[in-house]
Amino acid sequence: MEYSGKVLVDLFLMFAGGKVLAEVFERLRQPAVVGELLAGVLLGPSLLALIRPNELTAGLAEIGAIFLLFTVGLETKPRDLLQVGGIATLVATLGVVIPFVMGFAYMRVIDHSMVESIFVGAAMVATSVGITARVLADAGVLSTRVARVILGAAVLDDILGMIVLAVVSSLSAGGVNYLSLAIVTGEAAGFSLLVIFFGSHVVGRFRPAVAKLRARNSAFALAVILCLGLSLASEYIGMAAIIGAFLAGLALADYSEQYRLRQNAHPIMEFLAPFFFVLLGAQVNLRTVFRPGLLGMIGVICLLAVVGKLIGCGLGALSMGWKDAARIGVGMVPRGEVGLIVAGVGLRLHTISDAIYTVVLSMSIVTTIVAPPILRILLPRVESRPVAEAAAGAVKEG
Amino acid sequence: MEYSGKVLVDLFLMFAGGKVLAEVFERLRQPAVVGELLAGVLLGPSLLALIRPNELTAGLAEIGAIFLLFTVGLETKPRDLLQVGGIATLVATLGVVIPFVMGFAYMRVIDHSMVESIFVGAAMVATSVGITARVLADAGVLSTRVARVILGAAVLDDILGMIVLAVVSSLSAGGVNYLSLAIVTGEAAGFSLLVIFFGSHVVGRFRPAVAKLRARNSAFALAVILCLGLSLASEYIGMAAIIGAFLAGLALADYSEQYRLRQNAHPIMEFLAPFFFVLLGAQVNLRTVFRPGLLGMIGVICLLAVVGKLIGCGLGALSMGWKDAARIGVGMVPRGEVGLIVAGVGLRLHTISDAIYTVVLSMSIVTTIVAPPILRILLPRVESRPVAEAAAGAVKEG
Repeated sequence: MEYSGKVLVDLFLMFAGGKVLAEVFERLRQPAVVGELLAGVLLGPSLLALIRPNELTAGLAEIGAIFLLFTVGLETKPRDLLQVGGIATLVATLGVVIPFVMGFAYMRVIDHSMVESIFVGAAMVATSVGITARVLADAGVLSTRVARVILGAAVLDDILGMIVLAVVSSLSAGGVNYLSLAIVTGEAAGFSLLVIFFGSHVVGRFRPAVAKLRARNSAFALAVILCLGLSLASEYIGMAAIIGAFLAGLALADYSEQYRLRQNAHPIMEFLAPFFFVLLGAQVNLRTVFRPGLLGMIGVICLLAVVGKLIGCGLGALSMGWKDAARIGVGMVPRGEVGLIVAGVGLRLHTISDAIYTVVLSMSIVTTIVAPPILRILLPRVESRPVAEAAAGAVKEG
Repeated sequence: MEYSGKVLVDLFLMFAGGKVLAEVFERLRQPAVVGELLAGVLLGPSLLALIRPNELTAGLAEIGAIFLLFTVGLETKPRDLLQVGGIATLVATLGVVIPFVMGFAYMRVIDHSMVESIFVGAAMVATSVGITARVLADAGVLSTRVARVILGAAVLDDILGMIVLAVVSSLSAGGVNYLSLAIVTGEAAGFSLLVIFFGSHVVGRFRPAVAKLRARNSAFALAVILCLGLSLASEYIGMAAIIGAFLAGLALADYSEQYRLRQNAHPIMEFLAPFFFVLLGAQVNLRTVFRPGLLGMIGVICLLAVVGKLIGCGLGALSMGWKDAARIGVGMVPRGEVGLIVAGVGLRLHTISDAIYTVVLSMSIVTTIVAPPILRILLPRVESRPVAEAAAGAVKEG
């Protein structure tokens, strides 16, 4: 195995750049994740052109997102998630229907084709849970009811988004195969529900076997194997890998303390997640987005994207009061990499024009960067850091 | 960023395969690292052909090796390393000279060309500190004098090995440029000594600034930036990146406890190091090594490779008594990826024949797999695990 210097240069620039801008944004009282996104924009092709997505950095970004959702899952007990199941379903469903209808209607009004309008509607459905999960975790509010509703809705949203994407893809390919659609949906829903309902119980059954293992820290090794395995399974049945990672965390949450899973997973997430956010930023090419002639359309679509989720998800969570409904609505706004994926599929299928692709791309970027600061303002101020660090600081190095 | 399922399959197979065989080897009272190496051989092209080195897995392996040496450095105080400086220098020097002379002499005796003989001698000089560091860490003896001598000698060995490789490369290219050789050597030695002597002091100076940072866990983020930066610098001046990572750990060792650096770096190492060892194993193609006609020569070279380091390094450490001298000698035996690199350079320069390449490759593999079990037998039985786990277990999740 020969080492190539270029690899380390990329890693160094992405990690250091992300952390420096994260610190700057913390000082400006803005979410660190926005700093990391902007570090990517800065280092990416539009400005400094110092980094470029490659197989390694894309892989690190993917593993980073997986560990991010895994640690979030580890802090979410299945029964807490199930308790908010009703509201989360309402939030996810209305958060899919209303943005879709808004995007579709607007496109039809300004005289775009049926298929193109459907595609733009579909791209407005996606939610990137990574961004919001990071903001919630950084603010130390993962154990709140608001966070649980957002996380629960994100899992459902991924299933619904998958269905929408499958439908629009087949629409543009000729017609919808309802049977295969039902199978795909059933698989995704069945997989998620099985893990949520029985995952923790099955994991508990293995505790006597784990106690017999000899290798160092083998409980954590098994947890990582489960995380990678469920990510793989999730991807195999058409969902995002990060949803599988979240479900794995969920199944292990009851035993996280006993086996020190969170303490082990957290540093890995801290090291790798910046690659996800920086690379997400680096995929923004300012030269191809924000084209002058499209600015009006981009403005309207961005507005609809924010308002659609705010109204849809907010309505779904109205029973929790205005404040929490607003938090949940804003938390579901970022489209992140999911918006980029939908736009990419549309472009590849020649279903949407270059111009519309640019519009969708801009909408993904704007919602991703705008939502975290608003969410941070809306969230209650919890200073969780000193507690955690004081507790951990009490331990002598092993 | 679109996710490709193949990426996760590779990661899952390598991590799960490595951990399963590590557990099997622990049960057989053999070093876990040999299990991981064999998992690679099993999954690699010779047998199951399920994994193949690619940009991502090679990158993860490199980062894994970097974090392995970084954590080892974090447990090694600079002054402890300097205390064994004299012995380490003797160990490294004799450990380079004697294997070189043995390999060179044998090749000349069996009538190979001067250049080819020099190359085989050079390939026998290398030491792969990763393998031994892992065995020492797993055995919980990193703080012993033996471990320090091995680590100090490994840094020197890398510098000496670099000189030897530069000399043999230029020999086969026409002639040695002594001036550039002196510059390269001076750079490497100067860099290492600067970090060892002044690194910790410089790091200490930054503590007031670190205290003012707002981002979460920023001390660890800075430590990782230093680790990646020194790895990069090390590679830039021609040394292995892992030596830079080790030096970074060393510079931070005095503050590891205060900033919980080891507790943060350790899980990252535990997640990524298996990729290094599994991929190292996966580079073994049993079909191309161990050719029947070459078995005699392979046997002799393997024997000389083991005996050469045992005598050379053992002699250098004889002042520490027979037992420690034997431990140090065996600890310096594995050639690992360093042997593979030297062999690869020789093959690319058409300096050595395919047959000789195979011999050097086999020698690298045999020394890597044979040394850890012997070292483990020779090491004192330290049960460090319960202590570390009990201490860490006392902390509630933050």
